[in-house]
Amino acid sequence: MVHCLIIGAAGMLGAGLAKRLIEDGAIAGKAVSRLTLFDIAVPSTLPEGGKVVVEFEAGDISSPETAERLVATRPDVIFHLAAIVSGEAERDFDKGYRINLDGTRHLFDAVRKAHEADGYYPRVVFTSSLAVFGSPLPDVIDDDYIITPRSSYGTQKAIGELLLADYSRRGFFDGIGIRLPTICIRPGKPNAAASGFFSNILREPLAGLPATLPVEPSVRHWFASPRAAIGFIAHAAAVDGALLKERRNMTMPGVSATVADEIEALRAIAGDDAVKLIRQEIDPAIVAIISTWPKAFEASQAEKLGFKADQSFEAIIQAYLEDYAPKAEKQA
Amino acid sequence: MVHCLIIGAAGMLGAGLAKRLIEDGAIAGKAVSRLTLFDIAVPSTLPEGGKVVVEFEAGDISSPETAERLVATRPDVIFHLAAIVSGEAERDFDKGYRINLDGTRHLFDAVRKAHEADGYYPRVVFTSSLAVFGSPLPDVIDDDYIITPRSSYGTQKAIGELLLADYSRRGFFDGIGIRLPTICIRPGKPNAAASGFFSNILREPLAGLPATLPVEPSVRHWFASPRAAIGFIAHAAAVDGALLKERRNMTMPGVSATVADEIEALRAIAGDDAVKLIRQEIDPAIVAIISTWPKAFEASQAEKLGFKADQSFEAIIQAYLEDYAPKAEKQA
Repeated sequence: MVHCLIIGAAGMLGAGLAKRLIEDGAIAGKAVSRLTLFDIAVPSTLPEGGKVVVEFEAGDISSPETAERLVATRPDVIFHLAAIVSGEAERDFDKGYRINLDGTRHLFDAVRKAHEADGYYPRVVFTSSLAVFGSPLPDVIDDDYIITPRSSYGTQKAIGELLLADYSRRGFFDGIGIRLPTICIRPGKPNAAASGFFSNILREPLAGLPATLPVEPSVRHWFASPRAAIGFIAHAAAVDGALLKERRNMTMPGVSATVADEIEALRAIAGDDAVKLIRQEIDPAIVAIISTWPKAFEASQAEKLGFKADQSFEAIIQAYLEDYAPKAEKQA
Repeated sequence: MVHCLIIGAAGMLGAGLAKRLIEDGAIAGKAVSRLTLFDIAVPSTLPEGGKVVVEFEAGDISSPETAERLVATRPDVIFHLAAIVSGEAERDFDKGYRINLDGTRHLFDAVRKAHEADGYYPRVVFTSSLAVFGSPLPDVIDDDYIITPRSSYGTQKAIGELLLADYSRRGFFDGIGIRLPTICIRPGKPNAAASGFFSNILREPLAGLPATLPVEPSVRHWFASPRAAIGFIAHAAAVDGALLKERRNMTMPGVSATVADEIEALRAIAGDDAVKLIRQEIDPAIVAIISTWPKAFEASQAEKLGFKADQSFEAIIQAYLEDYAPKAEKQA
């Protein structure tokens, strides 16, 4: 019987993970009996747990007391997804470091103290990001490439990875850090994040709405559907810790695609009319940011450990239509 | 007129750097007018400053107040060499993180606050370590190889590098992090550190004393003399910050040598009688530790920036005889 804790449970991935754990009812062949969802505020709706006891806790993850309270119930698996996102961590230096660095360290220290008290030894799954990589980058980045973030968010995630590896090496917990590809298609409304257009140019036309493309179609990047990303996080809980000795943090497999590939996949699924809703309007600021981003990875370690990417960009669109579009239609 | 602050001034490198700055009397063509030496306790002897005003401050670098006090005088160059060493950081987890991580962060934050207050913008030189690298490692490690430390000390240094890069990118200070090779010949008494024998097998025979070699002569590693290491630190203060944009942290050039190379250099300088004082006695624990260490680097960025390694292992021994052995003889 497994007790899971999701820190950052109100986010898109956290909520999807909760749903998935309840649906699966099991992790690595063991029944999930209890699911603690944590975030800064209690969401308006909680998932139906079925056989799983679901509870929600609200609090500030950057306070050491919160981490100790969460660890007090000794969850077997801790999913640490909570973070201030890239743009906000760049705007608010102190807040980014307080939540993304201190929050992570307090959590890891709370687990360490529990380990020292009674041998507590959970699996800790930490979601990291491609933002740990910074230019200059090769066209294809392998598992041995240096991590030199070009944002405070990326720096905080890279430090989280280092702490996770050291605390795991010390035997305080059994950690695994997974660098998620850029999520596409991100459900919801268009957002102003530099990466937003990768989703906007698909999601909006699929709903019959116009979308702006701020870069050239030749721009290449690394993607996973929310479904695949949630799959990575769930799978990370099940990976054999003995296989992680030397490298606790790894890049997740993904689909390397250009914007042109995205558009062709959209055409295959929704036709020329959908494609015609995309209007190109170059934004030099976004072009400059994106030019420093990774294009593709050789995610060998993760593949060996059984992490599975989407099959193609068409499959990414298909997964969106199955997982999110029906709801959007119902709401409309 | 340059005011320099050395944090960790009582250590071997810190004391050597102070001596060197006083002797040179200048950094990057500007006169050094004031030298603040900081360490946990005031040493019994202070260097004669000549034209340089030398002052000593004692305190605990892990306290935010200490960092603020040191920054209050707005030194133009801050050399941050202070650290709990590898063995102690491994034995005392809390102390290692408190001094090596929190101490570094408090220092960087004190500079940031001073920057925000009045535009203060010093050069910050941070000494990192080969301990940031962890197995598996290629035979020759280039500037793009991933950093996966296998010790808490290496983890703390790697985090210091990330913070230095982010704070520099943000424009809070003009930082440079330099990964020093293993120092050889380390002056003083034989020590029990896993790396101690690299120095012991030269220093002791040079003084007519026996030494133990705990590994095979085929073991290869990366070395710098104290003189070269002090040269790296001094040069780091003078490097043009505009050349450091994307990579603020770098491995220093060194001499890649096997233990057999060390022994042949000893033979060339001190003869067969000196070599006969080395007795091999394999220590499986040390063999295991050393097997995970780097063997050689391609330190391209540092070389381009003008950092200069020792010419050969014979030159390393020669530097030791010139810089340290005469003193040992006078004391004897």
